[in-house]
Parts: sequence; structure tokens; C-alpha cells
Amino acid sequence: MTFKTDIEIARAAHKKPILEIGEALGIPAADLLPYGHDKAKVSQSFINGLADRPDGKLILVTAITPTPAGEGKTTTTVGLGDGLNRIGKKTVICIREASLGPNFGMKGGAAGGGHAQVVPMEEMNLHFTGDFHAITSAHNLLSAMIDNHIYWGNGLEIDERRVMWRRVMDMNDRALRDVVTSLGGVSNGFPRQTGFDITVASEVMAILCLARDLADLQRRLGNIVIAYTRDRTPITCRDIKADGAMTVLLKDAMQPNLVQTLENNPAFVHGGPFANIAHGCNSAIATRTALKLGDYVVTEAGFGADLGAEKFFDIKCRKAGLTPAAAVLVATVRAMKMNGGVARADLGVESVEAVEKGCANLGRHLENVKSFGVPVVVAINHFHSDTEAELQAIKDFVATQGAEAIVCTHWADGSAGMEDLAHKVVAMAETGVANFAPLYPDDMSLMDKIETIAKRIYRADGVIADTSVRNQLKTWEAAGYGHLPVCMAKTQYSFTTDPNVRGAPTGHSIPVREVRLSAGAGFIVAICGEIMTMPGLPRKPAAETIGINADGFVEGLF
Amino acid sequence: MTFKTDIEIARAAHKKPILEIGEALGIPAADLLPYGHDKAKVSQSFINGLADRPDGKLILVTAITPTPAGEGKTTTTVGLGDGLNRIGKKTVICIREASLGPNFGMKGGAAGGGHAQVVPMEEMNLHFTGDFHAITSAHNLLSAMIDNHIYWGNGLEIDERRVMWRRVMDMNDRALRDVVTSLGGVSNGFPRQTGFDITVASEVMAILCLARDLADLQRRLGNIVIAYTRDRTPITCRDIKADGAMTVLLKDAMQPNLVQTLENNPAFVHGGPFANIAHGCNSAIATRTALKLGDYVVTEAGFGADLGAEKFFDIKCRKAGLTPAAAVLVATVRAMKMNGGVARADLGVESVEAVEKGCANLGRHLENVKSFGVPVVVAINHFHSDTEAELQAIKDFVATQGAEAIVCTHWADGSAGMEDLAHKVVAMAETGVANFAPLYPDDMSLMDKIETIAKRIYRADGVIADTSVRNQLKTWEAAGYGHLPVCMAKTQYSFTTDPNVRGAPTGHSIPVREVRLSAGAGFIVAICGEIMTMPGLPRKPAAETIGINADGFVEGLF
Repeated sequence: MTFKTDIEIARAAHKKPILEIGEALGIPAADLLPYGHDKAKVSQSFINGLADRPDGKLILVTAITPTPAGEGKTTTTVGLGDGLNRIGKKTVICIREASLGPNFGMKGGAAGGGHAQVVPMEEMNLHFTGDFHAITSAHNLLSAMIDNHIYWGNGLEIDERRVMWRRVMDMNDRALRDVVTSLGGVSNGFPRQTGFDITVASEVMAILCLARDLADLQRRLGNIVIAYTRDRTPITCRDIKADGAMTVLLKDAMQPNLVQTLENNPAFVHGGPFANIAHGCNSAIATRTALKLGDYVVTEAGFGADLGAEKFFDIKCRKAGLTPAAAVLVATVRAMKMNGGVARADLGVESVEAVEKGCANLGRHLENVKSFGVPVVVAINHFHSDTEAELQAIKDFVATQGAEAIVCTHWADGSAGMEDLAHKVVAMAETGVANFAPLYPDDMSLMDKIETIAKRIYRADGVIADTSVRNQLKTWEAAGYGHLPVCMAKTQYSFTTDPNVRGAPTGHSIPVREVRLSAGAGFIVAICGEIMTMPGLPRKPAAETIGINADGFVEGLF
Repeated sequence: MTFKTDIEIARAAHKKPILEIGEALGIPAADLLPYGHDKAKVSQSFINGLADRPDGKLILVTAITPTPAGEGKTTTTVGLGDGLNRIGKKTVICIREASLGPNFGMKGGAAGGGHAQVVPMEEMNLHFTGDFHAITSAHNLLSAMIDNHIYWGNGLEIDERRVMWRRVMDMNDRALRDVVTSLGGVSNGFPRQTGFDITVASEVMAILCLARDLADLQRRLGNIVIAYTRDRTPITCRDIKADGAMTVLLKDAMQPNLVQTLENNPAFVHGGPFANIAHGCNSAIATRTALKLGDYVVTEAGFGADLGAEKFFDIKCRKAGLTPAAAVLVATVRAMKMNGGVARADLGVESVEAVEKGCANLGRHLENVKSFGVPVVVAINHFHSDTEAELQAIKDFVATQGAEAIVCTHWADGSAGMEDLAHKVVAMAETGVANFAPLYPDDMSLMDKIETIAKRIYRADGVIADTSVRNQLKTWEAAGYGHLPVCMAKTQYSFTTDPNVRGAPTGHSIPVREVRLSAGAGFIVAICGEIMTMPGLPRKPAAETIGINADGFVEGLF
């Protein structure tokens, strides 16, 4: 049996002109700003006109703790969107944009896989509609204006040692992590140690993904705390007067990007904040627009449910006023086996016992998602090597948890392999059993919010944090930031902060090494463990074999 | 009498859909890749199919030595394009794209002015179609791959002190001119002093603007000399294996951008290399495509004719196989007065004597352009404050030089103010008197090429260069780079290297401080004086007042 690769399937897609995809959603051609023939932005003025329409039903796709075996969360998101359309529900998919830089390190990814993909794949792995470039420009304009302010007299009395705002680049470039700028004499400014993060780690990215409209975008940009004075008074982007120009740079990027699935169903691919130091969800404006246009909206959140679903509920839904109707928890037999202790090389061998053992991880995520008041179904993303006994073991386990697990073959069959899950999702969503509430109230103290997540979601005994961290949180509470939610930056490979601990561990503690204020995005970041915000390239970067072949196609990128 | 501003006129334009503009040029809709409704790229496959068509006639618009009074070169280029279309000649305008960064320092510029503009102005001052972002990405990917190569063992034995390839950003950021990278320990690489240039100064920009097609682009990218070993052996981009991936990043950027004038005539706005360390012309692929589609193509080159026209003829035309049919030399009464010694504040006062004195500058540029075998006419870009006597003084002077000066009122009247010049240009171009030849042959030594330009164009007595500079040129000749043309980096404000010396000076020498190899672009840069490749922001950056107003329009950018 031979399979086509994702890129072969994507290139064979019968794409419709993007204006037709938009027309089917009720978007007039004049309100679609095309980028080539298969991508378009939806105009802000059209979006503004949708406010009074009722919302469709919002479905979150989340997953078990990820392993190298892969869980196929995006593939399932796309497949479920196609499946819902197949059974007659007008459905829009909402996923994140890919970061350009990492594609030149490891091979780039498809958006989805097999027969459940969003296209055009190439463009989505390259510049797409330029959103990330706009974010890079806006971020670095602020950086340049800060140093320029200091250069021309520093009227705001910024403490040069306490400039928090770095620069960004959409590139894997370890040499830029830690740099000294403004060398070379008087005309180049005051030397200062700083660095670059990758663009998806920019607070501007998180802001763009949470902003309601351009006015809200500018307000949030203005709130960014970029530095402190010697007496620790925060200096904001608004003080530097960069918020207006940054908004101008971002005005096109704020408009959601419309593309299509292999089955010609609509997908918004918009925004892509880091899932550790940020909330890891596609843009709120895309999700809210999709809810006005579709009966159903299927979206996903980064990493496993401990991080992705928690942040989706506690940050995105809270801030954007969204009410999810149901959730899908994606699992695979292979990932269950790895969570059950099987090495990657041995995944091809049937082991019902390992699947059963790994199910503890699935069970905990199920409980967690339900604790937000959202009904949940398990989607088993089917692999060729899965055995009936292994699949049955997952189904049996899930049944004991009072839920249902449904085998999905969208990778091989497209929407035809998704009908059962689609019907189940509709059944859950239309009974109206969802009773969504975030995990903690706004007015809980910041430290209590961190402890609540650690205990209720990660099932830790408690949180370890130095006095300096606790004092910093209190200082921010005194400064009026206490109402913000908390964004946990923790390894995605474990409920603990040790990436090697799989399954459903207990008895651990969560050490909070550092806290950061994202006042523009509107959350406090709690950093638990090493978080890399500027990746490096591997010994043999994918870039070395990327090129255009004799037929004019891009090679080596996928 | 009140005038509308450029942006008011531009916003009142009756733009046609870009597909209609393309259709009028014979470009099928499927070969136009739209970016919104008023910008589009022309597909590479359509361009490839044009090879056998005859070429239209190429008209260069150049200018006297620029002064703060302004000469209106782009405005005249746009006006002449409209004028030629008005008298029945199918004409395409070819100009450069604007750099994003500087718009946040000083106010951004229109493409043209008054009733001779290219639109959409806003987009052209912002991200436009993303070309410059693609160049930034391609350039910085190479930078990251160089440091990554050194990090993983430095198999090519690059001397870390001799890495010539810096990084770029499309931003005015003086703090990045001179930096130390890779601080912070083993995992961040080897600390190294380097810096950032603004994107338009990237050799990748010059390469994109001279490349014939994607294969030629990749070949040129591969030729870039990025570093030397300890024994001074050059290491190229091809050695680092970055050329393929860079080509992939640039594949869309290589396609010319089609927009329109206020009078709905077609304009290609594509590429924008620095006019000092690079050749300062729009892309060769845009010019060559335009020549296949129009009876006439009107283009311009950066700075005054001493730099712009010389580089256009000796670099762009030589390398791209172009044969100009005529040239237009733009002058204004005001700039003549400034060249004649009048201070800016006194420009409103009639002074025929100052005009006559300033005409020496005009006369020398006229002689220079004619020396390339290209017939030339003077366009006097009319200002409201010009007097008849002043205009007549220029006409009389030009007549003594065996040429004609024509008053053009395109700024106020659009194409109606350009009919006379358009008829004159057609008369010159269609008599076939042009007998273009570059100034020097390929096989002249590099030092002799520099001296030829200095003596024949700048009218200097000679060139001053240290032994180290002369030896470097000989080393490059021995390495096979002796056939390259020379790109002079000199102040645009004078025939000399002193920006304060106006008019038509003699008796000066041209000091060559440094020479650089742009092996990918295919020229040697001779640096004569201070050349800034990363601007800074002023005390009150324009960015502080840029924003989106209550009507949703961008304010403060123009």
C-alpha cells in the first residue's frame, strides 16, 4: 500500500477561486481583498457590519499530551470542519498561521494532513499574506523608537538597564538571542545588552490575536510596558507615542485570511502566538467573524489540553467573550502507547496493555476539559497500524469516564471518515448542555490563579516561587494588573515541568522561575522551566535542500 | 489660490480595478495575481511567454543635481507616461518601490505629485506587496545560516573576523548599525561584531533588480561573497547552500507589481536598490516586461544624472541588455536658482541672473547624457512661482547647448500639461538617432573604470586611492571579477565628494576610501565619502503622529 504525501495531495487539490469560497459564506467580492487567486483577507468594514448577527456554535479541538508519535490535532480540526459541512452544517474552520523561520530549520508543516488539509500549503509556509512581516515591523518600530527616545535626551527617564522590549525576527537565529547594540560611538546611541525573539513570541502577536478591532488594537498596543524608570515606574508604548504608527502597520494584518480545505470548505488562518509565553490560539477576530458567518466554527489551541484548552478557555474565551458549545479531545493509539511507556521504535507492535496504561493521560485531560463546563468527545485519529483491540481499549476506557470515543479516518477518507464525529458534535452542541465558565474569577489574586491552574489542571501539590516572584506579582496587583488572567509557560510534554514524565503524574510541584507582564495582551506570564523564545537552526538545516525544481515547484520545504 | 495636497488628490482618484488595467496591457486575469483590488503581480509564466515579442522604446528620466528645492523627477516620469498615453502611445511607467522604514522618520513620499501620481499611495508607503519583507527574510536567512555553519563546526573554515555579510531590517534603527551577536554562552554561538543595514542596502535587493529570471536570480545569489577564510579565500552563499532557499523566499517578489496612475495608465513599481552602494534603478525584469507590453516605457534612476543616469547606462542597461531611445533631463527654476547660489528662503524672488548661473550644472549633465549616445531633452517642471523671464533663461541656455527645454505643467494639469514634451520625446525616439554605448568597456581595469567615471562624468582631475584600495582591486581582478562595472557611492548633492559644492565645479579630486565586492549583483562598489547604510530616526519621528483617524484613514504618513 502506498500513500501520497501531504504535498502531493495538496498540489492535486481542485481549488476553487477564493472569491467563490467567500461568496458561499456571504462575503461580497468587494469585501474580499485577494492575495493571488486562492487567498483573501476579509475587509474590516464587512466585519464591522456583522455585529448584530447571531453567533454559530463554537467547537474546540484539543488533545492529549503530545508525543513524537503525533496526535493530529490540526488534521482533526480540518477533518471535523469538512465533516460538519458534509452533514449539512455550514462550518468555518479557524486555525493559526505558520511561522516562517522554523521551516528553514526542520521541514515545514502542512495545515492538516492527508485528505484533511487547508491549502495553499506552500504560501502558508512562506510569506502567506504578510501578517507576520507586519508584526515584525510594528514590533521593531517600537524598539527603534525606544532607543531613539533615549538617544535624543531620554525625556521619559527610561532606565537603560530596564528596557524590557526586545526586537524580533521571523527566523531561527541563535546568534541574535543575546546581543549588545549601539556600539561604534556617539552617533549610534548608548550601548545596551538586549536580544531578539522569534516573531511569534512578540507581545504584538498576542495583542493582534486578542484585539476586537483597530481601536482596541491601538489601545492594547499603547498599554505595552516597554521599560521602567530608575524608581520602577512603568513606561508604556503610549508614552513613546508608537501605538498609532504600529496600528497603521498592522491594519491589514488585523483582517482575517480566508483559504479553503481540500474539499473547498472555508477556513480562516489568522494569527499564531506562541503557545508557551502566549496563549497559542488563532485570532479572536477570525473566530468571532467565523461565528457570524457559520452555523459551526471549529478551532484548536496549541499543545495538549493542559496548556491549550486551559488558555483557550481562561484567556481567549474570557477576553473575547466566547462561549464554547463542545470540545473534541484528539488521541491516537500510537500516542497512547507512548504515554503508556512504549519507545518510538516499537510503536508498530500491538500492545493493548500500553494503550490502557497511556489512557490515564487521556482520562485526566477529559476530566479537565469537563471541569470548564464543556461537553467533550474523544476523537481517535486513526492510523493504518492501529489494531481493533487497541482501538477498542481506548473506547472502553473513555466509556468508563462517561464519555464516548469515535474512530475518525479523515486522514485517509476526508469528510467521509468524519461523519460519526460530526453527528456526535452536533448532538452535544445542540442539546445545549454546555455551561462554560473559566477556571478562576478575574478578582482572584495572581498567585492564587497560578496555584489554581497548577492544582486543578496539572494536579500538582503546589507551586514553588521565590519571594522576588511573589513580590513582583504583588507589585503588579498594586499597579492595577491584578485582574489579568495568567498565561502558563510550561513544557507541553508533561503535566509536570519535566518533559520526560508522561502519563498522569501526581505528587509534583510547579516551580515558577520568573513572571512577566504582557500588559498589552492582557495577561501575566508565569514561566515554569526553560522557555526558548528564539530557536536555532539544526546542523543540517532544511534550508540547504530547499529550492525550486525544474518544473517550477518548491522542493524540500515539506 | 489653494492647492489640494498629494494625498487629497490621490484619495480622490477614480481608480480602475487592477484587472482592467492589466487587461488593457494584454495580461490575462489568470496571469495577474491581485493584492487587494488595486495592486497585482504579473506571473512569471506570462513573462516567460513574452520573450519573442519586439521591444518598445525606452525613455530615461534623469535630473540635474538635486537640491532641497526639489526637481520632481518621479512626478515628471509619471507625467510623461500619462502624456505619451494621451497622444496615443501605449506607454508603461517603471519606477521603484519605497522603503518602509524611512517613512517613520520623515514623512513618507508620494509616487509622483499633484496630478501626476501613481496610486494607491498608502500601500506603496507601507507593506505594498511584501517584496521588501521577502528580501529582508532572504538576506537574514543567509546571515543565520552563516552563523549556524560556524556554530556546528565551521567546516568551510570561515574566518569569523572576515564575515562580510551583515543582517538587514527595513527600519531606521541606528542602534543596530554596530552590534555584537552570540553573547550569552556556548549555546548561542561565537560572539562576533557585525551590524544591520536597511533592507534597500542589501545586495539581495540589487540582485533582485538585475536578475533576468528565477534561475539567474539563484545563480547571482549563489555568487554572493559572504566571508573569507584566514588565507583570504572567498566563501560564497552557494558554499553555505542558502541560494535555493533564498530563491524560494524571493519567488513572488521577483514578479513585477502593476498599479496605475491617476489617469488609469499602467505603472510597474518594482524593486528599490540604494542609489549609492547600489545602482538605484527599478528592476530589470519590470523594465523588460514593460518593453514587451508597451510602445513606450518611461523609467527613472536615482539621484542626479551624474550618479543615476551613469549607473542606469553602465550597470542596468549593460547588464540587462537595454538600449535607451531618449533621455529627459528634469530641471526646475527653483533648483537652478539654488545651484546658482540663492538660499532656500529667497527662492520666491525672481532672479534671472541666479538661474543663468545655475544653468552650468544643467549644461554639464546635458553633455554627460549625450556622451552615452542618447538624445536628450530638458523638461522644466513648472512651479507656480516661476516667472516667464526665468523660464526663458533656461530655454535660451539649453538652446545654446544644441538641445531644447520644454515647460511641463503636469503637476497642475496632468497629461494635458505634458503634450509638448511627449511629442518631442516621440520625435527623438522615432528618428532613431540614439546610438547608445556605455562609458567604458568590460575589459578595462577596475581602477581605470573608476578614473574614467571620475574624469568624464564628475570632471575631476583624478582619483585618490590608497595602495590598499588599489591592491584590493587587483586581487579581485586576479580572482576573475575584473570584468564587472563599477558602482560609485558618492554624495548626490555635488559633482564632487563635498555636498556643499553646487553648480559645475572643476579642479577637484575623487577620493576612494574603500571598495566593496557585490559579486552577486555583479559590480564593484567604490565608496567616495561617508555612506550611511542604516539611517536613524530624527528627534521627532513622523511615527509619533502617524495613526488611523476617525474616518478610518491613515494620517501623518504623508
